Amino acid sequence: MQRFSSSAIHGSSSMSTMSTYDHQSAVTVLGLGPMGRALAGAFLDAGLRTTVWNRTPGRDRELTERGAAAAPTAAEAARASALTVVCVVNYDASDAVLREEETATALKGRTVVNLSADTPGRARDTGDWAARHGVHYLDGAIMTPAPTIGTSDAVFLHSGPRELYLRHKPVLDALGGSHTHLGEDIGRAAGYDIALLDLFWTAMAGYAHALAVARAEGITGRELAPFAQGIAAILPPLIEEFAGDADDGTYSGDLNPITSAASSMAHIVHASEAHGIDAGVMRTVEGQARRAIALGHGTDGFMRVTELLGRH
Amino acid sequence: MQRFSSSAIHGSSSMSTMSTYDHQSAVTVLGLGPMGRALAGAFLDAGLRTTVWNRTPGRDRELTERGAAAAPTAAEAARASALTVVCVVNYDASDAVLREEETATALKGRTVVNLSADTPGRARDTGDWAARHGVHYLDGAIMTPAPTIGTSDAVFLHSGPRELYLRHKPVLDALGGSHTHLGEDIGRAAGYDIALLDLFWTAMAGYAHALAVARAEGITGRELAPFAQGIAAILPPLIEEFAGDADDGTYSGDLNPITSAASSMAHIVHASEAHGIDAGVMRTVEGQARRAIALGHGTDGFMRVTELLGRH
Ligand SMILES: NC(=O)c1ccc[n+]([C@@H]2O[C@H](COP(=O)([O-])OP(=O)(O)OC[C@H]3O[C@@H](n4cnc5c(N)ncnc54)[C@H](OP(=O)(O)O)[C@@H]3O)[C@@H](O)[C@H]2O)c1
Ligand SMILES: NC(=O)c1ccc[n+]([C@@H]2O[C@H](COP(=O)([O-])OP(=O)(O)OC[C@H]3O[C@@H](n4cnc5c(N)ncnc54)[C@H](OP(=O)(O)O)[C@@H]3O)[C@@H](O)[C@H]2O)c1
Repeated sequence: MQRFSSSAIHGSSSMSTMSTYDHQSAVTVLGLGPMGRALAGAFLDAGLRTTVWNRTPGRDRELTERGAAAAPTAAEAARASALTVVCVVNYDASDAVLREEETATALKGRTVVNLSADTPGRARDTGDWAARHGVHYLDGAIMTPAPTIGTSDAVFLHSGPRELYLRHKPVLDALGGSHTHLGEDIGRAAGYDIALLDLFWTAMAGYAHALAVARAEGITGRELAPFAQGIAAILPPLIEEFAGDADDGTYSGDLNPITSAASSMAHIVHASEAHGIDAGVMRTVEGQARRAIALGHGTDGFMRVTELLGRH
Repeated sequence: MQRFSSSAIHGSSSMSTMSTYDHQSAVTVLGLGPMGRALAGAFLDAGLRTTVWNRTPGRDRELTERGAAAAPTAAEAARASALTVVCVVNYDASDAVLREEETATALKGRTVVNLSADTPGRARDTGDWAARHGVHYLDGAIMTPAPTIGTSDAVFLHSGPRELYLRHKPVLDALGGSHTHLGEDIGRAAGYDIALLDLFWTAMAGYAHALAVARAEGITGRELAPFAQGIAAILPPLIEEFAGDADDGTYSGDLNPITSAASSMAHIVHASEAHGIDAGVMRTVEGQARRAIALGHGTDGFMRVTELLGRH
C-alpha cells in the first residue's frame, strides 16, 4: 500500500505552496456506510490523517481503532481537513449533511468531493449551492464495489474544475485504482455513473432472474456460475462494437438479427412463466425488440432499440 | 486450424469400428443463418466433408465456393452424413425441417445434434419425437457469438445420451472452443441456455438503455465504452459470490445493501424519464428491490430478489 510522505505530497501537488502539509495530508470522510468505511480505511492505510463522521453513531469503531479521529458533528469533521469526501446514499442525504448551517460554514474555503451517487441534475444543483457558499466542489462517482477500494481495481470518475481536481489528486490517489477527470461540467461524472449503473443493475437483475430460472430447472447457482462468467467474458468486444453502432446509427444484424434475439427472449419469457417465475423485465425487453421489428428494423441487430427508447 | 485426418478420427472415436471413415468425417448442416454458416465454415476449415441446406436458397454460395456440397432438400442433405447439425431460429423451425416426412425417414438410424435455441420443454418434446422415429438425438446450445465459432472462445453445451455425445465429439470438436456434456436429461442444455441468455439479453438491454441515457447527457458511445467494459470486468467475481448466495439462501448486504441499490435505480429512472427516455425495465427492477425491502429484506443485498421472482 502506497504511503504518503511529505515529499510525495509536495512533489506532486500543484497547491504545495498554498496549503500547509497538515492540511494537504488530512482528509475528512462524511458517511460511513460500506463505501465510506472503505474510503476512510484506504486513507488510513495510506498514512493520511483521517477524520470521520456518520449520522448514526457507532459506525466508526473499527476506523478509530486503526487511527481515525472521530468527530462528534459533520461541521467539526469538516474543520479538521482541507478536503472533505462525502459518501452517503444519495443527494438528499448529502444535502442534509452539507447544507446544514454549521457544516456549510465550516466548509467555506475548503473542498468537498461528493462521491455519493445521484443524477447529473442533482450534481449540478449541488455545484450551484457550493458556488453560492464559497465551497470548492468536485463531483465524483465510484464504479467498483467497496472491496476494490485501495486496490488497483478501483475505478473513480470525477468532474468539475480541473485545477481543483489536480490540487487534490494526490490525496484521492490514496484510494487506489484509476481516477479519470471527465470534464469541467460538474454533472458529467453523474452522467457516466447513471449510464454505467444502468448497465450494472440491469445485468444484476438479469442474473438474479437467471438464477431463479436455473433453480426451477434443477440447475444450481454454482453449476451455472462458470458459464455465466463466460457470458460476462463475451461482453467487452460487444460493448465496444455496439458503442460504435450507436454513435454512427448503424446497427448491423448480419451476425445476429433482432428477429433471432426476439425469439430467444420469447423462450425466456415462456420458460420462466411456465415455472411461475415473473418475467416482467424480459417481457419489456422483448416488447422493445418486437417494436423495432414492427418498425421495419428486423434485419438490424438488437441494439437498434437504443434509437427507440427516446424521442429520436 | 485443426485438420481432421483418418487417424485422428479413428483414434479418438469410440465408434471407429461401427461406422465408415466416410460417415464419421462427413457432417450435414441444416440452417444457414449467421450461426449455421459459421458452423459449416468451421467444419470445412477442419477438413470435414460438409453438406449444407437452407430453407431459402442462395445462402450457401460462399460455403460451396469453399468446398461444401449443397443439397437441394433437407432429406438429401441428411442422407449425406451420419451426423446432422441443425441450427435454425427455434424449435418451430427445427420441427418444420426435421419432422417433414422425407427428412425424418432419412434421419432414421442417424444422429441429429440440434443447436437451435428454445425452451427445455421443446428440447424434451423433440427428444421424444426422435426416440419414436429411431433418430439418435442430442440437444445443444451455443453460448458465444458466431465469430467465435472455430476459435478457442466458442462455448458449446450438450445434453442427451453420453455415449452418443462421445461418439460424435471428434466431429463436434471441429467447431473449436469448449464442449461440455451437462447430463443425460435432453432438456438440460436448453435449461442452461435459457438462464444464460436471460443474463445476456437483459445485460444487452441495459447497455442499449445506457447508451441512450449517455447520449442524452452528451456522452458518446465511444466515450462510455471503456467504462462499460470496466463494469463487465467486475461481474465475474460477483457472479460467483451471488451463485453461492442463491444456493445457500444467504444474501448479505454488508457490502451493498438493497436500499442503496434501490436508490441508484431510482436515479436511473428519474434521469432517463427526465430526458424522455423509456425506463420500463429499470422501473420493474426497482419495483423488485422495493418489494424486497418492504418484505423486510432491506439490509440484504439485491440478489435477495431471486427468492421473490418465483413461488418460493
Ligand atoms: N457499496 C458499494 O459497493 C458502492 C459501490 C459504488 C458506489 N457506491 C455508492 O456509495 C454511496 C454510499 O454507499 P454505501 O455502500 O456506503 O451505503 P449506502 O447504504 O448507499 O449509504 C449509507 C450511508 O448513507 C448515510 N445516510 C443515508 N441517509 C442519510 C441522511 N439523510 N443524512 C445523513 N446520512 C445519511 C448513512 O448514514 P446512517 O448510517 O446514519 O444511516 C450511511 O452513512 C452510495 O451513493 C452508493 O451508490 C457504493
Ligand atoms: N448468431 C449468433 O451469434 C448466435 C449465437 C448463439 C446462438 N445462436 C442460435 O443459433 C440459432 C441460429 O441463429 P442464426 O444467428 O443463424 O440466425 P436466426 O435468425 O436465429 O435463424 C435463421 C435460420 O433459421 C431458419 N429458419 C427460420 N424459420 C424456419 C422455418 N420455419 N423452417 C426452416 N428454417 C427456418 C432460416 O432459414 P431462412 O434463411 O429460410 O429464413 C435461417 O436458416 C438460433 O437459435 C440462435 O439463437 C446464434
